[in-house]
Formats: sequence, structure tokens, C-alpha cells
Amino acid sequence: MGHQERGAREATPAAGDMSAEEFRRFGREVVDWVADYLARPERFPVLAQIEPGQLRSRLPSTPPEEGEPMSRILEDFERLVVPAVTHWNHPSFFAYFATSASAPGILGEILAAAFDNKSMLWRTSPASTELEEVALDWLRQLMGLPEEFGGVIYDTASVATLHAVAAAREALNLRVREDGMSGRADLPLLRLYASEQSHSSVEKALIALGLGQRSLGKVPADNEFRMDAAALGHMVEEDRRAGHLPFCVVATVGTTSTTSIDPVPEIADICAREKLWLHVDAAYAGSAAVAPEMRHVLGGCERADSLVTNPHKWLFTPFDLSALYCRRLDVLRRAFTLVPEYLRTPEQEVVRNGSDYGVQLGRRFRALKLWMIIRYFGAEGLASRIREHCRLARLFASLVEESEDWELLAPVPFSVVCFRARNAVEGETDAERAARLDALNERVMNGVNSTGEAFLSHTKLKGVFTLRLAVGNIRTAEAHVLRAWQLLNEQLSKLG
Amino acid sequence: MGHQERGAREATPAAGDMSAEEFRRFGREVVDWVADYLARPERFPVLAQIEPGQLRSRLPSTPPEEGEPMSRILEDFERLVVPAVTHWNHPSFFAYFATSASAPGILGEILAAAFDNKSMLWRTSPASTELEEVALDWLRQLMGLPEEFGGVIYDTASVATLHAVAAAREALNLRVREDGMSGRADLPLLRLYASEQSHSSVEKALIALGLGQRSLGKVPADNEFRMDAAALGHMVEEDRRAGHLPFCVVATVGTTSTTSIDPVPEIADICAREKLWLHVDAAYAGSAAVAPEMRHVLGGCERADSLVTNPHKWLFTPFDLSALYCRRLDVLRRAFTLVPEYLRTPEQEVVRNGSDYGVQLGRRFRALKLWMIIRYFGAEGLASRIREHCRLARLFASLVEESEDWELLAPVPFSVVCFRARNAVEGETDAERAARLDALNERVMNGVNSTGEAFLSHTKLKGVFTLRLAVGNIRTAEAHVLRAWQLLNEQLSKLG
Repeated sequence: MGHQERGAREATPAAGDMSAEEFRRFGREVVDWVADYLARPERFPVLAQIEPGQLRSRLPSTPPEEGEPMSRILEDFERLVVPAVTHWNHPSFFAYFATSASAPGILGEILAAAFDNKSMLWRTSPASTELEEVALDWLRQLMGLPEEFGGVIYDTASVATLHAVAAAREALNLRVREDGMSGRADLPLLRLYASEQSHSSVEKALIALGLGQRSLGKVPADNEFRMDAAALGHMVEEDRRAGHLPFCVVATVGTTSTTSIDPVPEIADICAREKLWLHVDAAYAGSAAVAPEMRHVLGGCERADSLVTNPHKWLFTPFDLSALYCRRLDVLRRAFTLVPEYLRTPEQEVVRNGSDYGVQLGRRFRALKLWMIIRYFGAEGLASRIREHCRLARLFASLVEESEDWELLAPVPFSVVCFRARNAVEGETDAERAARLDALNERVMNGVNSTGEAFLSHTKLKGVFTLRLAVGNIRTAEAHVLRAWQLLNEQLSKLG
Repeated sequence: MGHQERGAREATPAAGDMSAEEFRRFGREVVDWVADYLARPERFPVLAQIEPGQLRSRLPSTPPEEGEPMSRILEDFERLVVPAVTHWNHPSFFAYFATSASAPGILGEILAAAFDNKSMLWRTSPASTELEEVALDWLRQLMGLPEEFGGVIYDTASVATLHAVAAAREALNLRVREDGMSGRADLPLLRLYASEQSHSSVEKALIALGLGQRSLGKVPADNEFRMDAAALGHMVEEDRRAGHLPFCVVATVGTTSTTSIDPVPEIADICAREKLWLHVDAAYAGSAAVAPEMRHVLGGCERADSLVTNPHKWLFTPFDLSALYCRRLDVLRRAFTLVPEYLRTPEQEVVRNGSDYGVQLGRRFRALKLWMIIRYFGAEGLASRIREHCRLARLFASLVEESEDWELLAPVPFSVVCFRARNAVEGETDAERAARLDALNERVMNGVNSTGEAFLSHTKLKGVFTLRLAVGNIRTAEAHVLRAWQLLNEQLSKLG
């Protein structure tokens, strides 16, 4: 890195690992680099300003025959790799869902990397297994979810949702685990329902699970992007009449485009009546419930069969850590447990073995960082940060609302604002004007992103190109949001 | 940690993150702790010597309301968490497949944690996308695999195999992605074949994918635990006669119990003739091919459709990083791509977006550690370590062979030895004597593991309780293997 002498060579060992002393030296150097990075992220453009293939073309196409000194590797890291990084951990990252690896979480990751646990069995990592139970139960309490919800950590919400839907399928008792679904004339078409605003991971789960895109009932959303519960009821009825088998509903609290909240209480009523598994995707917005005054956003979720929330989204936890809560862990276990002889242990009847609950056998020691984060910030510290992010989003929304040049395109229940420039544009037809306005907004977004000072992404709402400003990074302060507003206005005056 | 003053309190910030200065201080402390850990792992028992529930019972059942100082959290980490860790990164960890997080890999993990990338699109992490292409191509060359093999990084081999089997299913062009498999009388029973020694992840993949356990044809193994290719041929024929649809074979190079090598060339012939997707599970043993004189173990794999190898197993890479190579990446992409509006980018036609290739949308910056490891050790450095591990296994096997008290139960092609004590035991019947010998071996294993000096695991071979000594940790030296041998003999004299 910067202060290493260029070309300095350490001996690469012929056997064994790097020496502990060398690790100590470079570890400190790397930690110092990270400390500087966290202190002054603004020295890097948020969105990497490079062309496709640029990094690859600068790296040798063949691996080195001899080992190289770590100082040279770190030099190349800084010179070649860093400019190709899009900085998710930058306070002006406002795209997608903004996230952060908080410093206490990074400390947890260092320790977890050194242990290199594979938490497949209690025995192979009692600490990971038990800390997972403790940290997930703490998080459950912080979110106000009922005690019957047991938790399992997965890597991502996509994987957690896949497991939840698999459990819903298993709960049908159709011997899908044993007999599968191919070559069976006895199986009706299984149907799962999610709003048209639901995350693509729901459809991907259905593809992977062999249920297919045809099994997805896309429920229309209302004017504020919430699932239309009445429409859901009708679709279930129609499917039953057609001889299909409705089995699951995925409701979303905090949809990806607008963070809208599906009417979970009404959906839960339908699920109860129709005996459907209710899975709630609260990957982003579940964290909001940590703030007591926002806990109501999970209203109805206490009746869900499963719920996923991602501490790596809005709870300052380094990626990846997704928490699935499930009131029927036994069903999830039944769907996935498979214990070969070499994994049998004397204590297997009295402990929880993580690999019983999913596709993955090995599992990282993810609970450590979550446990450290909850302790370091405390319930109140986490809540105050969530609260501040919502305040910043409302502040930004109010600037949009007060401006002649911009308009909001969706309500702002959390920390994401959907908006666009509403300049008068010329065109012969409505369609032409609409297309030009879309193009203008896209150019404004690209203009802001190319400054490297802020990074926003887009979605489409009712066919309209929509800018999104998502607040979620722990280091985002009012100044960053105000600067984004300024950049947007600068681009608009230039391009509008 | 140790040298922190007990009860010292730092201010926990009310907003934002831990300060960069505080991170620097605790980061250095954590790095120093890890350096000491790597230097003297022997101060910890390899297998955690605790009772189920012990850690959980020592932790508060509710989360803290106020934030706590990091010094106190690290103190609790050392006092409560560390004793509950089973030390995978300990040189006397000989259980399952022994693995290691090498020091250069840990450095990579620190940087990746700080960046907190979600490499779903090229744009969201050009560095991760392009370094993945470069590092996987380097690894491909190191293993001597053909240029047509493109690579994708997943978390685990279980997930990689699930994706490979999903691609095989997609290659059938039966519209499983679109229409699924339920409610379809037109679909025959799909059949996949793997040896009875194959890893449980194959069966789990079939369960998850909705193909079910019934779709698995378990091919018998020969006397040396290799798939019987002739039997495979017969099973495929019989299934065709029964109207089923054979679609995939999973061959294993380095099975989990004995590291046996399926006859891939013969299997590849059958797959070519029968037009079956050939997936090779080389999760453990693929790394051996990095040593040129062992490259032959992948003979025939150049004809596979896909192959998985785990750098996190035997290439000194911190967990998790599993590499799937596939000569038909387009099929894998077709199975899984799904791009909602909010993920569309201007460059999507000219770049590779990782999320197109799988269930997971977000993906960690895993390539960084692999790139650093290959550079730090170099091709020759990696090969020499693999070679040394195989030498240590052969050394241990020769001690077993030369002893009256022990016997080998399988060939030793790599770095794993299957063996048992063969003491004369008393009993009325053969079955009784066999059961007592099994019990004795289990007691010997538990005895060794309870010393905390070494950790071995078991399997069953031909119904016989079998001890396994797996060498794979980068810090394992001859002394560790000899000490394990001594401990085994001590336990045997005590119990035999």
C-alpha cells in the first residue's frame, strides 16, 4: 500500500503459511488502510468510473509461477483494484438499497475469517451455532416478533426465500421431497402469489425449485404499490376452480422499488382461511421495526409462517447475513435434513445442526458480527440510526415536494425516495413527451453518477422512469443528502 | 482482549459509525490477536470441549438497550466465545476435510468486508466481476482444465452443484423454467446418477430442485469405492426402458469418505453416448491438480459439462469460495437470468452480471482473496503445499500399515487416510465382534478428540466404523501428524 517501498520483497515461504509476524505487519497495514478508507471515503468516486474490461486488461492472463511479496500485491490492489470498486460503503451511495459494513461488523468479519468455521454441525462450531441462536433471538425481540419464531441465518434473502418456499411446499405433504414432481400425473399445478412489486428472488426461487414461472400468480398492486388483497382472494378462488393448488403467499414489507408495504393483516386473513403458507419478505424494511415507533410496519407479520430480514441491508452488518424466521422450523428441517454417516454425532438429538435447515452444508460464522453489532450500538443506538435515515429521506422528499422542477412518485414510508424531474419537454404526442421526459431523467441520473460524488439508481413506476434515492449507509449524514440534491439540480439545469 | 483494561469504556457514538480512530485501534488489536492465534493455535483445544448450551446459557437472553464499549465486547469474545470454537484453522484439525484460512486470504477478507460489495452486476462491482474472471481463469489453468470452461464463484459446492444440476435440467428444453414440473402429465421421471459414495449435496440438490430423492440413481461402487461405470450404463438403459428420462451424471473426484476417484473417462463415454450432462464434483480433490504430477486425477474431466472445486477446501482460501466451471455457461444463464427494471444497466449487453448465473443476487467480493492467495504463493508454492499434504498422508498410512494394531481401509490417493484399530475383540458371533470393534474404534476416536490435541472424524465403509485422518491445513506439519499417531496409540493401549 501507499507507504510500502515499491519493489520491496519479503521472502515467500516454501511451506506453511505466511509467518505470524508478517501477518501482523500486513494486517496492521490493511487495518490502517481500512481506517483511512472509512474516514475519507469521499476521495473515491462512489460509482467506479471505468470501462468494462479495463481491470481485466491490466492483469496478467496467466498465474504467477513463483510467489510474490505481499507488499507488491497490496500495491497492485491499490493501484488496479481499488479504482474498479463501486463503493457500497460510501455515505453517498444512494442506489438500490444503500447498506453498510459498520466498523464493529468489520472487526467481527476479521475474527470469523481467522476461525474459518464451517458451521454445519453444532460440534463443528458450537460458538457459531449458539451465537446464531442468541443473536437471532435478540434481533427477533428488537423487531417485536413473537417468541415462536425460530431463526436461521442464510447468506442472502434470495436463498432464505427459496428455503421458505421449499418449506411451504413440504408442508403440503405431497411427498415432493421423496418423489419429486416429474413423472407425476397426480400433482396439480402448485400456485404461489406475490404482488407485481415483489422482488425477483420470488420468481427465481420458483424457477430453482422446479415450480416454474407458471406457478407464480402476480397479484396487481394498488395505486400506492401495495398488493391488492381483494385481487389476491379472487385469484386464489379462480385457481381452485381451475383445479390448481394454491400453497403460498409472499407479502412484502418494503418493496424494492418504492418500499411500499403490502396489507399483511388482510393477506394473513386470506392465508388463514385458505390454509396458505404466508412468507413475508421484509429483507429491507424489517430493520425499521427496531425503532419502537415504527414497529407497526410489521403489523400482521406475527401471523406469518416465515419472514426474512437482512441485517446486511439496513442493520449495518457486513454482507452477507440474511435472517429467516419461521414458526415451523420442523417443516423446514423435514424438507432439508439429510445426515450421512460421516456427519453423525453423539449429541445430534439435543443440539441444532445448521445444515439440517438448508441446501448449504458449510456455513460461515456469521452470527459473530451480528452479535458484536447489536452489543456495540445497543437497541437504542440501532433505532436512532434507522430513525435518522428516515428523517433524511423525508427531508429529501420535502425538497422534492417544494420544488417546481421535481415531483415525488411514491409515498416515503422508510428511507427511500422515488422521484423525477418534471420539466416541460416538447413532443408531438403524449407518448413522445413521456419518452423524452424518461430520457431526460435517465441523463440526469447518469450525469450525477458520472461525477463520482453520489450514486443513484432507477426503477420504473407505472411505466415511468423513476429516480430513487435510498438512504441506508451508517455514515450518511445530512450533508451527503443535500449534496445529492444539489448535484441533481445542477444536472437538471445543464440538461433540462 | 487480554491487554485491554477490564471495564474501560469508550464512548459509543449516538449517530454514525464507530470513529475511524477507534476502528484503527481495535482493528490493530484484533489483527494482533489473530497473529497470536495463527502463531500458537495449540493453546486451544481443536475440538471445543464444552457441553451443548454452555455458551448460550452464559449470554444475556435480551439485547442490550444501550451500546457497550468494544473493549468489553472483545473481552467477552475471548472469555466466552473462543472456548466454544472448534478450531478449523488449527494444524491438528484432521476431521472431515481439513481446510485453512491462510494469512494472505484473511487479509483479502478484511478488505472485502470493508468494501461490502454486492457483486450482482458488473456496475455494482466491476472489480469483483473482473477479478472473478481473472482469478478463476488462473485457477482453471493451474488445474489444467480446457479454455472453454468459464467459471462462476458460489458460496459452497452444495450451491454450485445445485446450479449445475439446474443447468442440466434446463438443457433438456422441457420448459421447466417456464412451466415447472407440477401439474404436468407430459413429463417423464427425470433421473440423475451418482455413486453411492457421492456427497449428500447431490441428493439435497435434487430435493431442492423439486426432482426428489426418487430421481437419484445411486450407482454401486467397486471395492475401492469408485463408481462402477458398467453398472451406470445398465441403470441408464433400464431407466430408458421404463420410460424415465436420464439427464445427468455426477462423478466424483475425491469422494468425501475415502477420496476415491470415479472412472471419469468411462463415465464421460457413457454421457456422450447417452447425451447426459456430466457434472464432476471435485470439491476437495480438484486442488490436487495444481501439482503437475497429480493433474492426471482430473483425466476425463476435460469432457465434463461442469465441474466444481472448492478453493476453500484445499487451496488455503478462507470459507466460503466454491468455483463452478462450465462449458455451457449460456445454459446456466438461461436457467437463472431474470432482470427486473431496477437492475437494468446500459452496459448489460457487453459485461457479465454475476446474478444472471444463479439464485443469489448479491454476491460477496470473494475473488479478491483467491487472487491474493494465488499471487502470494504462486503456482509452485501452492503445488508444493498440496504435495506435502499428500506426503504426510502417505507417511501416516505407512505407520498404519507397519503396525500390528491398525489397518488401512481404503487406498490413499490424496491427503486422507481411512483406517481403524484391528484389535482382537471377544464376542460370540461375527456380528458381535464387529460391533465391539466398531465401538472400540469410536471410543478411541472420542478419546483422542477429548484431549483437545487433535480432532478426527469417522465414516462407515462397507458397514465398518472407519477413522479418517484428513490433512489439509496449511500449517499442518509432520510433527502434528506424528502426534496424532501417538495419541491414537495411547488411546488404543488404554481402551483396547
